[in-house]
Amino acid sequence: MSITHPQGFLAAGVVAGLKSTGKKDVALVVNEGPLHVGAGVFTTNRVFAAPVAWSRQVIADSRVDAVILNSGGANASTGPEGFADTHRTAEHVAEVLQAAGKDISAGDVAVCSTGLIGVRLPMEKLLAGVDSASAALSADGGDDAAHAIMTTDTVTKQSVATGEGWSVGGMAKGAGMLAPGMATMLCVITTDAVITEEQASALLAEAVRTTFNRVDSDGCMSTNDTVLLLASGASGVTPDEADFQAALTQVSAELSRGLVADAEGASHDIAVTVVNATSDDAAEAVARAITRSNLFKAAIFGQDPNWGRVISAAGTVPEDVAPFDANLLDVTINGIQVCRGAGVGDDRDLVDLSGREVRVEVDLHAGDASATVWTNDLTHDYVHENSAYSS
Amino acid sequence: MSITHPQGFLAAGVVAGLKSTGKKDVALVVNEGPLHVGAGVFTTNRVFAAPVAWSRQVIADSRVDAVILNSGGANASTGPEGFADTHRTAEHVAEVLQAAGKDISAGDVAVCSTGLIGVRLPMEKLLAGVDSASAALSADGGDDAAHAIMTTDTVTKQSVATGEGWSVGGMAKGAGMLAPGMATMLCVITTDAVITEEQASALLAEAVRTTFNRVDSDGCMSTNDTVLLLASGASGVTPDEADFQAALTQVSAELSRGLVADAEGASHDIAVTVVNATSDDAAEAVARAITRSNLFKAAIFGQDPNWGRVISAAGTVPEDVAPFDANLLDVTINGIQVCRGAGVGDDRDLVDLSGREVRVEVDLHAGDASATVWTNDLTHDYVHENSAYSS
Repeated sequence: MSITHPQGFLAAGVVAGLKSTGKKDVALVVNEGPLHVGAGVFTTNRVFAAPVAWSRQVIADSRVDAVILNSGGANASTGPEGFADTHRTAEHVAEVLQAAGKDISAGDVAVCSTGLIGVRLPMEKLLAGVDSASAALSADGGDDAAHAIMTTDTVTKQSVATGEGWSVGGMAKGAGMLAPGMATMLCVITTDAVITEEQASALLAEAVRTTFNRVDSDGCMSTNDTVLLLASGASGVTPDEADFQAALTQVSAELSRGLVADAEGASHDIAVTVVNATSDDAAEAVARAITRSNLFKAAIFGQDPNWGRVISAAGTVPEDVAPFDANLLDVTINGIQVCRGAGVGDDRDLVDLSGREVRVEVDLHAGDASATVWTNDLTHDYVHENSAYSS
Repeated sequence: MSITHPQGFLAAGVVAGLKSTGKKDVALVVNEGPLHVGAGVFTTNRVFAAPVAWSRQVIADSRVDAVILNSGGANASTGPEGFADTHRTAEHVAEVLQAAGKDISAGDVAVCSTGLIGVRLPMEKLLAGVDSASAALSADGGDDAAHAIMTTDTVTKQSVATGEGWSVGGMAKGAGMLAPGMATMLCVITTDAVITEEQASALLAEAVRTTFNRVDSDGCMSTNDTVLLLASGASGVTPDEADFQAALTQVSAELSRGLVADAEGASHDIAVTVVNATSDDAAEAVARAITRSNLFKAAIFGQDPNWGRVISAAGTVPEDVAPFDANLLDVTINGIQVCRGAGVGDDRDLVDLSGREVRVEVDLHAGDASATVWTNDLTHDYVHENSAYSS
């Protein structure tokens, strides 16, 4: 159940003192090969953190030897000095691993950071943490690494999928500020399958498109979102591409579903599925408009199957983005079709919203494409966690 | 201070029993001429209420004789039957006013409704209310009318601006679900100035663009938004067009500012001004991205001058929509430049967020255009009011 399940990877998670809580806050993942294929997907926010700028350069040649991750500071909006800190971290990782006999260059060390924006990292602590993490590297260190990247997460997010002789493992963190263009989070996925650089890049993008990019907890896009895929080829097995895509997507789906389930202050996980749209994009746009509606999200918190708020959110999507006849909209909430033909449907009192999971289906009657976007309800605890503490 | 300040208008607000509270819930406004110029701006939501469909037809010929407004029911998502109810209401208004000796046809009676979606209006009560309102029409009935359109509003919103021999008066309702494409609300503006149909339409659109369309309390667009302008010409004075535009915009600005000040559950009114953008549209897009950020809005509730959440929201606006260099962003909150060059600026502890009004200025350093969008903070009371009660 961790990133060290696939062969060819070492990992560690240690306490470096970046977090005031004294919990693990530095993670290191090393790909021992024989392959060192790497791919990444990053936030589309134009305001992005120094480690994102750095890691984009690292993956440009599709090679990643190691990933160093820290919680306790995002290293975002920290200027050229922040970028220098990231660079120095990668160089230190390379030096320490070289001293341990590994053939790793700083330009192949990806860096991920998460925590407060606008604050420089305490570099002495971080570099000492790199030393500790290097010393602690182990073939079953994945779980420690998953703990070290947690911020407000209450549980680790880990997943494994296995093929015939190969496997995919993943870890992620993120418990708020989940949004399109990728949930706010860090994620590292490993595999021992033999795949090419082109496959790594294309298959990761496809997996992210329908998983991480379709969780939208609060519509806010972070400066640090990163998903990395590292392939070691250590199994020696070249998988069927469709099988590998399926495994990669499964791990991505489980991790992203885990992010929603652990979202800050949420009391409901809500899957909004739009069916019979003219295209995937149209379906996703309508689903996203609904998952972005504070009124809808507050209604679900109040266990109110308020279909009026669902269709009025759907109606804000421009016609050219999602063609449909607004008079034909049907809305089904947890199995009860409460809105039929944009008007009153079955008895709304039949809808049971007492459980954690809520399923909303909107039928556009316009085509045959569909998409699901996951979100959370808007609760008192969300407001509390995001107003009482800076982040 | 009311819509009956300009000459040539009668108004009334009565209790028809649509509201369970027993408060006034039906308003009637009659333009006695000599001109009967009318213009309107409506919600751009593709899911729109029956009265919006009807009133769009009414203003098509730029003539409006009367407006009937009700709270206690939005008549949205009520199907063909709901449209028939609106039609019947307009016909009843015309009949009653004709019986009172006025030359008014149903096709020139605009209808506005506000309240719950998906519920038919109690037509017997509403039509009896029309009778009462007609009997109560008075040249100083504006204040009663303003009371009759209130829903969760705690105060009426009224405004008057005067020119040389003419004036503009306005009333509005709305205390939640304020969003672009127009704040969710009903608004009637009257004037006794002599203006043409073309002026009414163009000058109203311009006034709405920079006022009602720039308040965005919670990002949710309603099904019933309507702003109507009625010109009686009763002053006999033809105003300078720029003077009239200024007065119309002033009334629209005061009313829309009043909507923000009375927004459901808010504890801060927040003006986000984006300066030095390449265009008005670019400035507005960036301002709107910030006013839509739940994280930013929750931070202001917590009196946290969190500039990181400001610039990370700005960074979500695509480059082609708003060209700017993300490394140059400055953020000033209540006079303190807390972020300079996308990094740490002056001491954030100097920012005083204890007052109701908050001013956030974002400098894009890209051009010379600017725009201000008003919003509210995200509070426990917002969640409570929108989860505990259906609407």
